[in-house]
Amino acid sequence: MRTVPIHTKPLYEVLCGAGLLQEAGARLKPLLAADRIAVVCDDTVAPLYLKTLHDSLAAAGFSVIDCVVPAGEAHKNFATLQALLERFAENGLTRRDAVAALGGGVIGDMAGFAAGVYMRGIRYVQLPTTLLAAVDSSVGGKTAIDLANGKNLAGLFLQPSAVLCDTDCLATLPPEILADGAAEAIKTGVLDDETLFALFEERPVGQEGLEDLIARCVLYKAGVVERDERELFERKLLNLGHTAAHSIEYLSGYTVAHGHAVAAGLAIIARAADRLGWSEEPVGARICACLEKNGLPTTTHFSPADLAAAAARDKKRGGDQITLVVPRRIGACDLRPTPLSDLTRVFSAGLEA
Amino acid sequence: MRTVPIHTKPLYEVLCGAGLLQEAGARLKPLLAADRIAVVCDDTVAPLYLKTLHDSLAAAGFSVIDCVVPAGEAHKNFATLQALLERFAENGLTRRDAVAALGGGVIGDMAGFAAGVYMRGIRYVQLPTTLLAAVDSSVGGKTAIDLANGKNLAGLFLQPSAVLCDTDCLATLPPEILADGAAEAIKTGVLDDETLFALFEERPVGQEGLEDLIARCVLYKAGVVERDERELFERKLLNLGHTAAHSIEYLSGYTVAHGHAVAAGLAIIARAADRLGWSEEPVGARICACLEKNGLPTTTHFSPADLAAAAARDKKRGGDQITLVVPRRIGACDLRPTPLSDLTRVFSAGLEA
Repeated sequence: MRTVPIHTKPLYEVLCGAGLLQEAGARLKPLLAADRIAVVCDDTVAPLYLKTLHDSLAAAGFSVIDCVVPAGEAHKNFATLQALLERFAENGLTRRDAVAALGGGVIGDMAGFAAGVYMRGIRYVQLPTTLLAAVDSSVGGKTAIDLANGKNLAGLFLQPSAVLCDTDCLATLPPEILADGAAEAIKTGVLDDETLFALFEERPVGQEGLEDLIARCVLYKAGVVERDERELFERKLLNLGHTAAHSIEYLSGYTVAHGHAVAAGLAIIARAADRLGWSEEPVGARICACLEKNGLPTTTHFSPADLAAAAARDKKRGGDQITLVVPRRIGACDLRPTPLSDLTRVFSAGLEA
Repeated sequence: MRTVPIHTKPLYEVLCGAGLLQEAGARLKPLLAADRIAVVCDDTVAPLYLKTLHDSLAAAGFSVIDCVVPAGEAHKNFATLQALLERFAENGLTRRDAVAALGGGVIGDMAGFAAGVYMRGIRYVQLPTTLLAAVDSSVGGKTAIDLANGKNLAGLFLQPSAVLCDTDCLATLPPEILADGAAEAIKTGVLDDETLFALFEERPVGQEGLEDLIARCVLYKAGVVERDERELFERKLLNLGHTAAHSIEYLSGYTVAHGHAVAAGLAIIARAADRLGWSEEPVGARICACLEKNGLPTTTHFSPADLAAAAARDKKRGGDQITLVVPRRIGACDLRPTPLSDLTRVFSAGLEA
């Protein structure tokens, strides 16, 4: 078992290890004054893990309300948010009660948002069941739903009260879902240091060593989030690869999974960094090789101009600029404010063969 | 012109006086780094004041996006919130931009909520155009929309960056809308002190002395909000009369205006306080006389049992209790945690002739 403390206000801990779903009730009972817990999960995860969590919470004395929603980014919208809030209210959830997000990034984002606005805010905990949620989205307090006009455009910064990552849940993940999480882990390697990145170069992400890998990624993210919770400065670095990624997701109607879009976005900005003279050593080939080893894409069929037009809707835009995150070398990236009018040129450089 | 500072984080000021809509651009420009401002108002207020505010903001250099929504509590819902957020996104509002709420309590609540979740939070200012919004809802950072299951069940605590109350807007209010605000002002008198309450006993609330009256009510509320922004303790006092009021609004399908419901709720709890021996001097008759002088109701046709059942949905409920606010005398009220099972008895006592 690994424990990573996150020093935000309030402080909380990320626990990572085997068997945490069965222990969830006993671990959460001393933490939450709640009588009731609403467990939010999707209809893919429900048959796999809901009963285990429900029984563990009930055994600890919580009244458990199951809230199963349709799976997929397409349902990370107002209709599902509203349905969740009405269900909380129908089942008498009060201000002292809590929400548990059991699932991947979509469920964590949406359940956290629902908790943050229900009765002007109740507490929530994250129980990530995908590698992507474990290494990235369950930590740091970003919650959101998508608008018709773009991804994650409505949401809150709101830290969870705890993150319990049961590595047993990751054992059943299909390869493409594991790869999806590997993309965010590789991104963390590019941001953080050579030794973490080298792990991904050696062999593709698999079941072995996952607990340690997750803890390393969370530890890096924890430091960034503690120093800049609301993404005013340093936290923008975590958006490495995400400008093109959000455009790809948007243009595909969210049929491209987030991690796969991040992989393509990471490859695009790395190649662009080399071609435009922004990197101090070549990064494109190494990053692309590493992504390919993990079965991840390194390009997209959308045109540079379409990617640039979609990026103008991104919430990271400020006025007529957007801040790109650019690898200088493995383990060091720069924030580069870029005029929107330059984006097509940047993406073209990143997509040249 | 009166200025009341609100010492929350961040600190902001409530300005109250004639002609503030015309001055809004010049006053907000040094306060907001925004390029764009989305002005939210309803289709009743738009023909009266939108052009004045729009022109003032545009003259100060803001790009102004008009967002007109249908009037009424029935539209304080997810559909309108979603439409606002999509409109912000379509018009390129970014994280450095801001929202201006021009209107009564419904608009202030909803525009503030929209600002609080748009891109995980942008700034907003309140420009109240009703007495109720001026003395109560525009100050203190409560934002919300209604759910099918109850009023204000989704929302945020989020302080505005400024409140500009142009008393010229209040000059055109029809008597029943003025009375609606008088109910919250009278409530403030019951909470705060004899001298404020006595003003309402002398003569009904009218145009004369409004600036001073608003500043006094805001000053009282500011102190409470500064000490307990998130309504964990003292701020619960501001819910005086609101338990029955929310039930009345809910049972009427929100056809009873908020202030009128508060008046009835205030009368009910005051009479109950006398009958149940909770007040140390009789308060029911004085409060009811004062409400009647202002053309406000002091009773409801809903039964005590129906009021109690509806109150169980209230977000102020914690477990099987609800905290009632009970007048001990004019100028002093008590928080009284009450089992839900006692509510019918309390409301019965408050509705006896």
